[in-house]
Amino acid sequence: MDLDLFVLRKIIERFLFEDIGSGDMTTNSIVQADAVSRGYIISRENGVVAGLLPAEMVFQILNPEIAFRVLAQDGQKIERGMVLAEISGNARAILTGERLALNLLQHLSGIATRTARLVELAGNKSHIVDTRKTTPGLRMIEKYAVRVGGGYNHRFGLFDAVLIKDNHIKIAGGIGPAVEAARRGCPHTARIEVEVEDLAGVNEALAAGADIIMLDNMAPGRMREAVGLIAGRALTEASGGVSEENIRAVAEAGVDLISVGALTHSVKSLDISLDLQDIKHQ
Amino acid sequence: MDLDLFVLRKIIERFLFEDIGSGDMTTNSIVQADAVSRGYIISRENGVVAGLLPAEMVFQILNPEIAFRVLAQDGQKIERGMVLAEISGNARAILTGERLALNLLQHLSGIATRTARLVELAGNKSHIVDTRKTTPGLRMIEKYAVRVGGGYNHRFGLFDAVLIKDNHIKIAGGIGPAVEAARRGCPHTARIEVEVEDLAGVNEALAAGADIIMLDNMAPGRMREAVGLIAGRALTEASGGVSEENIRAVAEAGVDLISVGALTHSVKSLDISLDLQDIKHQ
Amino acid sequence: MDLDLFVLRKIIERFLFEDIGSGDMTTNSIVQADAVSRGYIISRENGVVAGLLPAEMVFQILNPEIAFRVLAQDGQKIERGMVLAEISGNARAILTGERLALNLLQHLSGIATRTARLVELAGNKSHIVDTRKTTPGLRMIEKYAVRVGGGYNHRFGLFDAVLIKDNHIKIAGGIGPAVEAARRGCPHTARIEVEVEDLAGVNEALAAGADIIMLDNMAPGRMREAVGLIAGRALTEASGGVSEENIRAVAEAGVDLISVGALTHSVKSLDISLDLQDIKHQ
Amino acid sequence: MDLDLFVLRKIIERFLFEDIGSGDMTTNSIVQADAVSRGYIISRENGVVAGLLPAEMVFQILNPEIAFRVLAQDGQKIERGMVLAEISGNARAILTGERLALNLLQHLSGIATRTARLVELAGNKSHIVDTRKTTPGLRMIEKYAVRVGGGYNHRFGLFDAVLIKDNHIKIAGGIGPAVEAARRGCPHTARIEVEVEDLAGVNEALAAGADIIMLDNMAPGRMREAVGLIAGRALTEASGGVSEENIRAVAEAGVDLISVGALTHSVKSLDISLDLQDIKHQ
Amino acid sequence: MDLDLFVLRKIIERFLFEDIGSGDMTTNSIVQADAVSRGYIISRENGVVAGLLPAEMVFQILNPEIAFRVLAQDGQKIERGMVLAEISGNARAILTGERLALNLLQHLSGIATRTARLVELAGNKSHIVDTRKTTPGLRMIEKYAVRVGGGYNHRFGLFDAVLIKDNHIKIAGGIGPAVEAARRGCPHTARIEVEVEDLAGVNEALAAGADIIMLDNMAPGRMREAVGLIAGRALTEASGGVSEENIRAVAEAGVDLISVGALTHSVKSLDISLDLQDIKHQ
Amino acid sequence: MDLDLFVLRKIIERFLFEDIGSGDMTTNSIVQADAVSRGYIISRENGVVAGLLPAEMVFQILNPEIAFRVLAQDGQKIERGMVLAEISGNARAILTGERLALNLLQHLSGIATRTARLVELAGNKSHIVDTRKTTPGLRMIEKYAVRVGGGYNHRFGLFDAVLIKDNHIKIAGGIGPAVEAARRGCPHTARIEVEVEDLAGVNEALAAGADIIMLDNMAPGRMREAVGLIAGRALTEASGGVSEENIRAVAEAGVDLISVGALTHSVKSLDISLDLQDIKHQ
Repeated sequence: MDLDLFVLRKIIERFLFEDIGSGDMTTNSIVQADAVSRGYIISRENGVVAGLLPAEMVFQILNPEIAFRVLAQDGQKIERGMVLAEISGNARAILTGERLALNLLQHLSGIATRTARLVELAGNKSHIVDTRKTTPGLRMIEKYAVRVGGGYNHRFGLFDAVLIKDNHIKIAGGIGPAVEAARRGCPHTARIEVEVEDLAGVNEALAAGADIIMLDNMAPGRMREAVGLIAGRALTEASGGVSEENIRAVAEAGVDLISVGALTHSVKSLDISLDLQDIKHQ
Repeated sequence: MDLDLFVLRKIIERFLFEDIGSGDMTTNSIVQADAVSRGYIISRENGVVAGLLPAEMVFQILNPEIAFRVLAQDGQKIERGMVLAEISGNARAILTGERLALNLLQHLSGIATRTARLVELAGNKSHIVDTRKTTPGLRMIEKYAVRVGGGYNHRFGLFDAVLIKDNHIKIAGGIGPAVEAARRGCPHTARIEVEVEDLAGVNEALAAGADIIMLDNMAPGRMREAVGLIAGRALTEASGGVSEENIRAVAEAGVDLISVGALTHSVKSLDISLDLQDIKHQ
Repeated sequence: MDLDLFVLRKIIERFLFEDIGSGDMTTNSIVQADAVSRGYIISRENGVVAGLLPAEMVFQILNPEIAFRVLAQDGQKIERGMVLAEISGNARAILTGERLALNLLQHLSGIATRTARLVELAGNKSHIVDTRKTTPGLRMIEKYAVRVGGGYNHRFGLFDAVLIKDNHIKIAGGIGPAVEAARRGCPHTARIEVEVEDLAGVNEALAAGADIIMLDNMAPGRMREAVGLIAGRALTEASGGVSEENIRAVAEAGVDLISVGALTHSVKSLDISLDLQDIKHQ
Repeated sequence: MDLDLFVLRKIIERFLFEDIGSGDMTTNSIVQADAVSRGYIISRENGVVAGLLPAEMVFQILNPEIAFRVLAQDGQKIERGMVLAEISGNARAILTGERLALNLLQHLSGIATRTARLVELAGNKSHIVDTRKTTPGLRMIEKYAVRVGGGYNHRFGLFDAVLIKDNHIKIAGGIGPAVEAARRGCPHTARIEVEVEDLAGVNEALAAGADIIMLDNMAPGRMREAVGLIAGRALTEASGGVSEENIRAVAEAGVDLISVGALTHSVKSLDISLDLQDIKHQ
Repeated sequence: MDLDLFVLRKIIERFLFEDIGSGDMTTNSIVQADAVSRGYIISRENGVVAGLLPAEMVFQILNPEIAFRVLAQDGQKIERGMVLAEISGNARAILTGERLALNLLQHLSGIATRTARLVELAGNKSHIVDTRKTTPGLRMIEKYAVRVGGGYNHRFGLFDAVLIKDNHIKIAGGIGPAVEAARRGCPHTARIEVEVEDLAGVNEALAAGADIIMLDNMAPGRMREAVGLIAGRALTEASGGVSEENIRAVAEAGVDLISVGALTHSVKSLDISLDLQDIKHQ
Repeated sequence: MDLDLFVLRKIIERFLFEDIGSGDMTTNSIVQADAVSRGYIISRENGVVAGLLPAEMVFQILNPEIAFRVLAQDGQKIERGMVLAEISGNARAILTGERLALNLLQHLSGIATRTARLVELAGNKSHIVDTRKTTPGLRMIEKYAVRVGGGYNHRFGLFDAVLIKDNHIKIAGGIGPAVEAARRGCPHTARIEVEVEDLAGVNEALAAGADIIMLDNMAPGRMREAVGLIAGRALTEASGGVSEENIRAVAEAGVDLISVGALTHSVKSLDISLDLQDIKHQ
């Protein structure tokens, strides 16, 4: 699923406000309004690139005539030294937008790179999915980066799917009543997922007709048992404590999905820079 | 500097919209409007806590009658198992707000923890400062977390200080004209910082009357030389390539400030959870 | 699923701006700031009430000390002459908010009333669901009114479910590739619905693994055939041309869901008024 | 009075957000970014069209290069089967915007059609005017649709005219003091309208110098008497209980204006659809 | 007409953002969160006070528990040294809000003072009214200050009245067609004002049925003639070149209204200060 | 420092909403959508022009195809009768935007003119700077006008510099602790200014290491003493009671900066008008 451009634009405008505030003092004092420049966005590290479109949009919001020539595609494996894009046009817009564009590109590429590694480690058995442990305000674009890295998305928020956790279950007085209340109250288009911690929970969830069963913090052996028990009657999702070390074992337990909060809650940026050249007055 | 509550509230409202959208399907279907609950925010890892106030605000925006009893202070060293806060009140508000509150608390505590470690490694010689490599939309609160961890803040955006980089210098035709243009155009309340890459740059910056000189990507030996040359006539900031391994050496070069982008661009969340109990209808 | 109060408040604030603009000239000229009043919200027609909470919120945003005593419950059958709520407090807030509160209450009660009638006509065989043919800006609350009337909700927008229509199918080159692309790109939490126009389409949708099959504009006989063919392997939804006259026949075709755009695109308000009494200065 | 384009754009952006949220899952998964399409907006019912400009704007906000060729004019009588507009360009924008564009067009055409019928029934004697019983958030465009249908607008909100109702009168202690307070407090550019229920009220309003007298829920005979009494010294407006059945009689009572809440509070959409063709990749 | 509190609050929130941005560095670094203080708002100049409510709201938005005891009323003549209000509570809120509260109070009192002087100079013959030459963003509150000073308001914007100027007349091809177009397109609740420059224009405007005739830049003698000619068939407004020197003469020409742009486009602040005392930690 | 175009656009959009509201009744009723016009912006007074770019933006937001040919430069001395710009294009956009464009141009030119006069009176000895006594909502553009007039800017808000006033000092328990707290809490990029009232304060501020010392309400003689005492160890700013009469004497006391609140809190508009010609239908 590609990014929605209409919504993306509004998000990036907000980010620009945060950085620009009452104006870029340095640039607006030193650089003439008609100066032009040309620059290259260059990877300083190996990884998977994500976010070229948001980066481009940063500059084009500041100056619609900026030319941004993309030399790599989101999802592509990149290497240290590769030129990802060439940018040219109004020098003020380039200087003022540089930091935000790079912050986005580095952050999203970091997520895509990490996702790609986990996808590779997991093998083809299970889909790697994200969680709601995203950075506040960045969910739409962080989830995009997960897809770019070969992962899949879990729900986008509290509004688009039902995920019944232990506390909901306690309040409802059991999995059965909780699922029933959700079926009655929520659109039929939303699948209902139930979080369980043991095989008894699995059985209850199956009986209640859950569409997806989240196996929370189970050991791989127990998980395999659960998958066998479920036998295709619901999607299965492994959740909790997944790491690079154990993800293969989790995948081999046969779950359909493995959700990994760390994809988005602990992001290591990919090092990417913007090198400017050819600055001149028009 | 404490967080500004007025601004913080608007930021958190925006984050809540992202997650809630057209409504928390699960909770609003399953949990009665008058159900109440009590929970504990518990650290699952050792570190430095930051963000208790933003976490509290998440719940209080959703329901002003939520009671949030703080049992730790931002900046405090916490250990695995410690209860950081007790929350009680409307169960829907607690369930709907849980994820955002934890996302904030984990992210900010991750920053504070990392900052505290670097501050300790650097010793007392230099201030550890952040950069503009923050997560878009979170700058105000990420910079707060840096302070909580014992670090100091660099400028908040393009609007509150002058930082003249190589590209500004090229356009202006040298450090001298660049500094002069900034002095003429910017408030006298803003210090002027100049980025230099070698000792010639240091001399130019001094001649131009720079208030702060950023020593970009210099080896510690060269940096020490630069510090000697500057001799207190400007603040000195080391920037680029600072890691846990070399930060002590950088500090010993005698710089006033060491800026570390990774404080905020590559954050590892601190593991913190919310355990609910005592759910009941009122 | 109950209304989300946090989001509702923002919606209603926007509506208030539309009506108040630069100020309620009449009230702010004639009525003293400290005048108080008491009034009764009274039904002028039989129907099903919906929207008492939004109505209350209108007044409480204008003056948090307004007392709004609810005497009926959303979803209750009401009769001409019934008092639905008693409101008392600041007279300016009551006069300024009156029209918006009634507009909401009348509109939502109109939807609930219409929904309840269709639910009754359809019998217990199928769920009556709404569509995206809602009034722009009112989707969340119109869908609430549908639930209040005994109906169920279809998806809330383009963001929370997959509905593959004929044009998507043409572009993808068939139902199979369309469903496959959606599975790959969309969260596993979203069900995939496919719109078909004939039995060939039903077979293709089944083969592609659609979760829900929308039978678009089929005659009841053909629909029954389709339901038989599907045999529980997907949810079935009747769509298009449903009226009070034919809804029973459609339901008896055995579909799980009957979607009715007219629930929200052609709303007849329920007549409800606010009678003020006891106006006085405090 | 034509629609204001600047304000219209902001309104439609808000409506788009409601529907698109975090993205059009279906379209952004299935349809390539560069696919193009062509479609026709076709009337499925006889009526009066209104809203072609808002419909066009929906698509052009999503993609400024969409071509929208208008084949009918707002206010024109249309018949089942007529092509109202041809749209061509980016397929994603067309698919994502389709529903909102149609929702607006159907709703506004419903209002224009209904207005035109009442205008015709009333004859040339009185102006048919709308009220503040509009759908929250849609006032500006609903009032436009009323004008398109041959009706006239009453005030746009609480901010642009004075309408003194019974409750204002009670608080002020009579029509005289109420009008006087309004004259003192409100711009001289706003006419002052007073709602009265009987001939005594008419006399008081005349004595107070009201510019417009609203004859609330009077029988046609009594209304005629009131009109005679007023004798051109104020505009006269009939209000309350106006229907298709009695509107001619009301008009023949000689009032200048007949206000009809149902023009906007109980709208029956006009059936209009968008048929896509020629979908292809660019 | 009193200020609308709901709208005022939103306006003041925006102003607070402008000043606070990412936080009040000084106060949030130096003043403890629980420090309290007490202060007095004191006039340093004679004049007419306006804006105590907006000033209070500044502080109460920052901290709802601030106590603001009003010791003067908007519209009251104040003298140098008078205490206008006492404020006590959270010291941070007082220090952070001080400048905005005073900026508002000084600006609005400046307008009220100037208005009061012109009202006095004009005598009782004509109403002094403002124009749309207000400070962008402040129209609602500047017009309030004019009323506080004894003046009256002209229209609030382009949306609430019709004012036909020379350019509209040229485009329409004369006053008659212009008035006719406006009558057809605009609510009957809005009066129609026509700007004329000579007696021929007066006659045309009368013939067209204008409700208000603006006598633009006429000498007092000519104005008197115009007033005689109009003879009560329309309101008369003198406009253009009105000063303290000639306002009495203009009033004596017998016009109903004298509009003065300088009331709001050239404001001299009234000097008002906030003196803090009793600062202490709670 | 030039205006930031991205931020400016948002500010002007807000101002347009204030004036346009639900639409320009007069223009949208009388002027055809395709009428075009040509006009000239003409100075009616001698002064210094500021704000041509904001004026242009008003029209271009309303209609991107408006041509705005600038015939003067911001900062230029203009004389009565000079044509500052020629505008041509859509007549509705020109008529609707006229008032806001002129309000901005007149207000900003008023500030620039006043600033230029004070700069001239002060001679070359001291910089004339503005304060936070700006009109709420207009700070960014008012400060721009000060620069255009030859003045310099003080801080933009509470967020970009530290200014320690008497109340902060009282709470901190002295200048020393206050400065120390600010140094610890605020970015090193912000200079720290301390307000003092006498020579003892000067000495304390120097001892505390203040970067700027504000000499508040000192007589010129005392100020000269203070400047001598400071001897270049801090910037010196004269503040309070500066007028056209005494500014030269203040400057001759040797201070670096003279801040003048009246530059922005008491603005006399410069008279500028827009003359339309050549109105015709396209």
